[in-house]
Amino acid sequence: MVGVKKKEIRIGMVGYQFMGKAHSHAYRDLPFYFDNPLKPVLKAISGRNEEAVKEAQKKMGWESYETDWRALIKRDDIDVIDIVTPNHTHAEIAIAAAEAGKHIITEKPLALNVEDAKRMLTAVRKNGVKHMICHNYRFVPAVQYAKQLIDEGRLGKIYHYRGSYLQDFIIDPNFPLIWRLQKEISGSGALGDIGAHSIDLARFLIGEFKEIVSTMDTFIKERPIGEMTGGLSAKGNSEEMGEVTVDDATSFLARFENGALGNFEATRFAAGNRNKNKFEINGEKGSIRWDMENMNNLEVYFTDDEEGVQGFRMINCTEEVHPYVGAYWPAGHIIGYEHTFIHLMDEFLRGIAGDYQPSPNFEDGVKNQILLEAIEQSAKDKKWIEIGS
Amino acid sequence: MVGVKKKEIRIGMVGYQFMGKAHSHAYRDLPFYFDNPLKPVLKAISGRNEEAVKEAQKKMGWESYETDWRALIKRDDIDVIDIVTPNHTHAEIAIAAAEAGKHIITEKPLALNVEDAKRMLTAVRKNGVKHMICHNYRFVPAVQYAKQLIDEGRLGKIYHYRGSYLQDFIIDPNFPLIWRLQKEISGSGALGDIGAHSIDLARFLIGEFKEIVSTMDTFIKERPIGEMTGGLSAKGNSEEMGEVTVDDATSFLARFENGALGNFEATRFAAGNRNKNKFEINGEKGSIRWDMENMNNLEVYFTDDEEGVQGFRMINCTEEVHPYVGAYWPAGHIIGYEHTFIHLMDEFLRGIAGDYQPSPNFEDGVKNQILLEAIEQSAKDKKWIEIGS
Amino acid sequence: MVGVKKKEIRIGMVGYQFMGKAHSHAYRDLPFYFDNPLKPVLKAISGRNEEAVKEAQKKMGWESYETDWRALIKRDDIDVIDIVTPNHTHAEIAIAAAEAGKHIITEKPLALNVEDAKRMLTAVRKNGVKHMICHNYRFVPAVQYAKQLIDEGRLGKIYHYRGSYLQDFIIDPNFPLIWRLQKEISGSGALGDIGAHSIDLARFLIGEFKEIVSTMDTFIKERPIGEMTGGLSAKGNSEEMGEVTVDDATSFLARFENGALGNFEATRFAAGNRNKNKFEINGEKGSIRWDMENMNNLEVYFTDDEEGVQGFRMINCTEEVHPYVGAYWPAGHIIGYEHTFIHLMDEFLRGIAGDYQPSPNFEDGVKNQILLEAIEQSAKDKKWIEIGS
Amino acid sequence: MVGVKKKEIRIGMVGYQFMGKAHSHAYRDLPFYFDNPLKPVLKAISGRNEEAVKEAQKKMGWESYETDWRALIKRDDIDVIDIVTPNHTHAEIAIAAAEAGKHIITEKPLALNVEDAKRMLTAVRKNGVKHMICHNYRFVPAVQYAKQLIDEGRLGKIYHYRGSYLQDFIIDPNFPLIWRLQKEISGSGALGDIGAHSIDLARFLIGEFKEIVSTMDTFIKERPIGEMTGGLSAKGNSEEMGEVTVDDATSFLARFENGALGNFEATRFAAGNRNKNKFEINGEKGSIRWDMENMNNLEVYFTDDEEGVQGFRMINCTEEVHPYVGAYWPAGHIIGYEHTFIHLMDEFLRGIAGDYQPSPNFEDGVKNQILLEAIEQSAKDKKWIEIGS
Repeated sequence: MVGVKKKEIRIGMVGYQFMGKAHSHAYRDLPFYFDNPLKPVLKAISGRNEEAVKEAQKKMGWESYETDWRALIKRDDIDVIDIVTPNHTHAEIAIAAAEAGKHIITEKPLALNVEDAKRMLTAVRKNGVKHMICHNYRFVPAVQYAKQLIDEGRLGKIYHYRGSYLQDFIIDPNFPLIWRLQKEISGSGALGDIGAHSIDLARFLIGEFKEIVSTMDTFIKERPIGEMTGGLSAKGNSEEMGEVTVDDATSFLARFENGALGNFEATRFAAGNRNKNKFEINGEKGSIRWDMENMNNLEVYFTDDEEGVQGFRMINCTEEVHPYVGAYWPAGHIIGYEHTFIHLMDEFLRGIAGDYQPSPNFEDGVKNQILLEAIEQSAKDKKWIEIGS
Repeated sequence: MVGVKKKEIRIGMVGYQFMGKAHSHAYRDLPFYFDNPLKPVLKAISGRNEEAVKEAQKKMGWESYETDWRALIKRDDIDVIDIVTPNHTHAEIAIAAAEAGKHIITEKPLALNVEDAKRMLTAVRKNGVKHMICHNYRFVPAVQYAKQLIDEGRLGKIYHYRGSYLQDFIIDPNFPLIWRLQKEISGSGALGDIGAHSIDLARFLIGEFKEIVSTMDTFIKERPIGEMTGGLSAKGNSEEMGEVTVDDATSFLARFENGALGNFEATRFAAGNRNKNKFEINGEKGSIRWDMENMNNLEVYFTDDEEGVQGFRMINCTEEVHPYVGAYWPAGHIIGYEHTFIHLMDEFLRGIAGDYQPSPNFEDGVKNQILLEAIEQSAKDKKWIEIGS
Repeated sequence: MVGVKKKEIRIGMVGYQFMGKAHSHAYRDLPFYFDNPLKPVLKAISGRNEEAVKEAQKKMGWESYETDWRALIKRDDIDVIDIVTPNHTHAEIAIAAAEAGKHIITEKPLALNVEDAKRMLTAVRKNGVKHMICHNYRFVPAVQYAKQLIDEGRLGKIYHYRGSYLQDFIIDPNFPLIWRLQKEISGSGALGDIGAHSIDLARFLIGEFKEIVSTMDTFIKERPIGEMTGGLSAKGNSEEMGEVTVDDATSFLARFENGALGNFEATRFAAGNRNKNKFEINGEKGSIRWDMENMNNLEVYFTDDEEGVQGFRMINCTEEVHPYVGAYWPAGHIIGYEHTFIHLMDEFLRGIAGDYQPSPNFEDGVKNQILLEAIEQSAKDKKWIEIGS
Repeated sequence: MVGVKKKEIRIGMVGYQFMGKAHSHAYRDLPFYFDNPLKPVLKAISGRNEEAVKEAQKKMGWESYETDWRALIKRDDIDVIDIVTPNHTHAEIAIAAAEAGKHIITEKPLALNVEDAKRMLTAVRKNGVKHMICHNYRFVPAVQYAKQLIDEGRLGKIYHYRGSYLQDFIIDPNFPLIWRLQKEISGSGALGDIGAHSIDLARFLIGEFKEIVSTMDTFIKERPIGEMTGGLSAKGNSEEMGEVTVDDATSFLARFENGALGNFEATRFAAGNRNKNKFEINGEKGSIRWDMENMNNLEVYFTDDEEGVQGFRMINCTEEVHPYVGAYWPAGHIIGYEHTFIHLMDEFLRGIAGDYQPSPNFEDGVKNQILLEAIEQSAKDKKWIEIGS
């Protein structure tokens, strides 16, 4: 579909690190697999460090670059602003982009706090632009299929949601103080970085939270000051130490509007778990288990399976009947992490082309932020907090 | 070792259902595998229903029976009282047995409340008898080996303990109101029945709890009144409905004395999980995972493994170097659930013979009960509770 | 059922090592779990080394001992002769026992060659005694359940049988020359010791072999002469070296009478595989996978499962509907290796009590031996061999 | 790297179905991830059906199209001919392309027979062009890493290679007679289509074959004549039946030059196995297991691991130290099937740029073809065949 004449949609991206790479690739690869009504054009990329942004521009195939995101937003040849900068900049950029009439896609979490998040939502609504937040794990085919099974009532009433996101990349005390470990830039630590994904998956799959209680901890209080990067494999380059101002780990209990019990955990201190984003859902008629490290598989159990042959089915979600994967390869030929971004971008562009508001969007971002804030508050006050709607 | 002339130790057992069967088998099978200084003799079994107790006596190979546990305790030809009755009877029987100078082993939880539990501990201490509580999962070889690795410092400082015990045997609303679902008999539901095991494993493996916050729920409020049994495969035999007065599910967060974060869940509503008692422990130098459904396996990860070949090792704990299993078969030939009781009884009798107090014992039972009570209180008051030592 | 008055059946066992222990335990434990019409009595055990046999007698609970198996067979107070000696002795003992009118159970392989095996079969038939060969893996509940599914036609026509039995206990060149590595005592190596089990499972599950082609190898040609033992964890105790006269590994292709293709492998040189006895069966309507290291689980796939949720089901065969396990514990509480012998003995005694000939028996032993011999011949001649019926 | 000015290499592709898509994507995606000295340009695509090739051209982003591959080969603006047509056309196209001085990459198997394969090898050698055969599974990072471990001697002497490739896409008798089921087009069935991959992996990982013996079968002899496609999800569109002239399944034993025993199986009749391409290698110092359905994982066992913690390590090969994956995402973020083609194309272009002959190439193709032919011959003659070098 790549060579087919289509209406173009011109992207401007602010930032260019880990997520910048994932988004850039998705725009480039999308037309090959999906028959989206719009064809993304990688118009311009922006970053403060001219040398670095120039290199990123070339490496990832953008047509031009800017060193000031305000300049990017002003450009007439750009339809979409894609924000992949550190969290503390999302609000200002998004609001300016909305006011400039650009559609917006931003990395999660939406902002550093609920107030900013709400201002962002107001801005996109007022300016009538489409918006999306990059909770890419929703777009794993196995997860989409889980959602479909739940919506069809195949699990019946939901009793339990168990979500955990375990990483181990900062377990070494010598791992440097990257921006993800600094509250004023990242908002929170494991909570906002990976816990936010677990929260979004739970909301997507079984609905809204009603109340939560949490605990948080920072196991390593000081780290060497290193490169100012979000890089997950950064190295410390200094003997100077700085304070870690975010959580290394967060754990919380929840109750959902639908009566289900939730149990959640996000940590960067689970040795051996590189990127263990997983959930288990138990309902009256069955259960579902999923784990990002084997993201193409979904384990499904049905209580009404015949006696004797009851057991979790290990489903390789690579068949035509499974969401998105028909666009790729025959059954049993797996896809990877990067494809989740392709699917998300596909949905975003379809929303723009079809004039509907896709999800997850800034409303989801606000709801997620309310939870992040409540979870931090709960950990501080050591009490249950009701989640206002 | 069965035919070797040894000092005999004469057992009297109160109760004869699921746990009665497990204990009876363990006493019978113990001498075959282990060179214990004492040889258990199945002297007498007691139960109120004469016909049933008589049948149990024959089936399980006891020499005699009583219809009143008080009569059993009075007998001179009995050294040990083994209590496998419903939870509400433990305290009275154990205290009487202690006062009669019998060594005591009892099923968990120790009692219905902390007060009773403490009275029991006082009684055994005052009377100088050996005592044990039947947290059999400590005695899985893989779990014993996990303990050994932790004690050797192989995981370093512990950051996380994640314990869950998931079952699904009461997920059908027509499953009857067995005694395990009645508070006055069982004390609590999933919490005391299976959560108590998770608590004990955590205490055994990484140490004492400091504070907890919990939530509990009862998903099915009424059930048909059925046979008065604890049986996990009981059928309802009545159209009359009775109230479920215990928790179907309990979830709680914890902090340990050593600084680790805990995350726990116990439920009987996790479809497809027949007996999924599992834990994961993350420390600064490694992690351990275990799951009762594949109880012979232990997954172990070391952060200091060479780059490139880092990964969880799937260890089949059936080698001579692993605790207890040298007594059985060559490596790779697995053992099962029942063997955990053999190991526990072996430890109990060694304690009696060697005049030391084995663990887990009534002190562990009291500590466990304090936690059970705190967890119930926390769920009621919706607040964190400190665990007094 | 242990205490119930029942007709006794008096066992005499020849040999007392690894298999002697497994059989002794099975006789002792059987009455506790199963309501067999006969109650086994461990009457006498026999071995040439008086000190050793005396110790074994005491350890395993036999009433008496003999130092000559001929004396054992002559005894009037013995109904069953159980043969757990090295393979080269099976024929002589079994024939003598048959002529003495004893029922016979023997370890596999039946004999060192087809001729001896057939003489054994003739002897038991002529003397009208019941006979069994100890292919215990048939009696794993998951395997029995697989058989049931296949017989019900749940897999349809069978296309493939894939059986492999991988061990690694002799991978160290310093592991001594135990009798299992000496042809004149054991008949063959990996082939007869573990490959024979794979052959038996295939015959049990899908039927008779039609033709085979094989290859065999001995990777380590010489080993230190050690204790004269079959022990899997023996240590060499000599600097003298002896020749390994059996196969370390055997691999063969097969065609079955029913048209299925077979692919088999038996080796003691598969590092990391302690006791990996496994099979996969593919039929037109589904597939089954099983692995002894997780023996309670059966993986089952049905082609007529609904699109989208097709996948191998991981079935924990511990439910009442699964063969044998109703006698033990609630669902999800696993059993182990030793229980396979209990089930086999249960079947044997039922055959004696009910006057029917249980399986697997000497006829199966002969058929197995024909295959073992054909496989050795095929490896030698490098050609396909038809299996005469 | 995509925007960096680089020397271009202009690709012409013959064919455009499943493999055409995989190759096209790889050329397009390669510059984004890898800093290859050459930048592929998708110059022209060729196919006989103008409408179809035109659509493919647009869909996959090729600059132009031809309806005759001879025309494509004649073009001056093309440096590389990529052959993804059915197998019977490979020889003619490749030889013509070689004579026209084009570098050549072709899908496997190289040809329909050894004679053609050798003519192809002669042609590329004579004309001094670079050549490659698309055994993409070599380029899975986990497989590359396995090769590295073996070459470093981490497994020591190799005893066993166990390779199987199980699929189930033609298990339904109504699946149509696609070209992959017709000998004159495909050469063979499961053997050449997927068995060829297993053969290549074995040669890559442990070295050359010495002799083989095989058996083959065609379970469904007739199928409905359908679309003339290689498509794995084709539907029959006719009531007319045609003969299946290739193998549905092939099984073979092997001995390698290095003394290892091989056991192989390729089938399209293994229900529930969508694309189960797997191997296990056992050596004197360890073992390796791999399975394409979870292609990012490698299971590795070392005999010299400390007693007690010996076990297969489940390695997620997504770390910087693992081949190729440094170009993608942080550890734990998996890649998929399509990336194997990117790596293969990367190697191909590096060979062209650096003037060395990359592997696997036509020499590998000839060796593979010799094996395919020997395996067919062995099945026909029912005898062992030595593999000439």
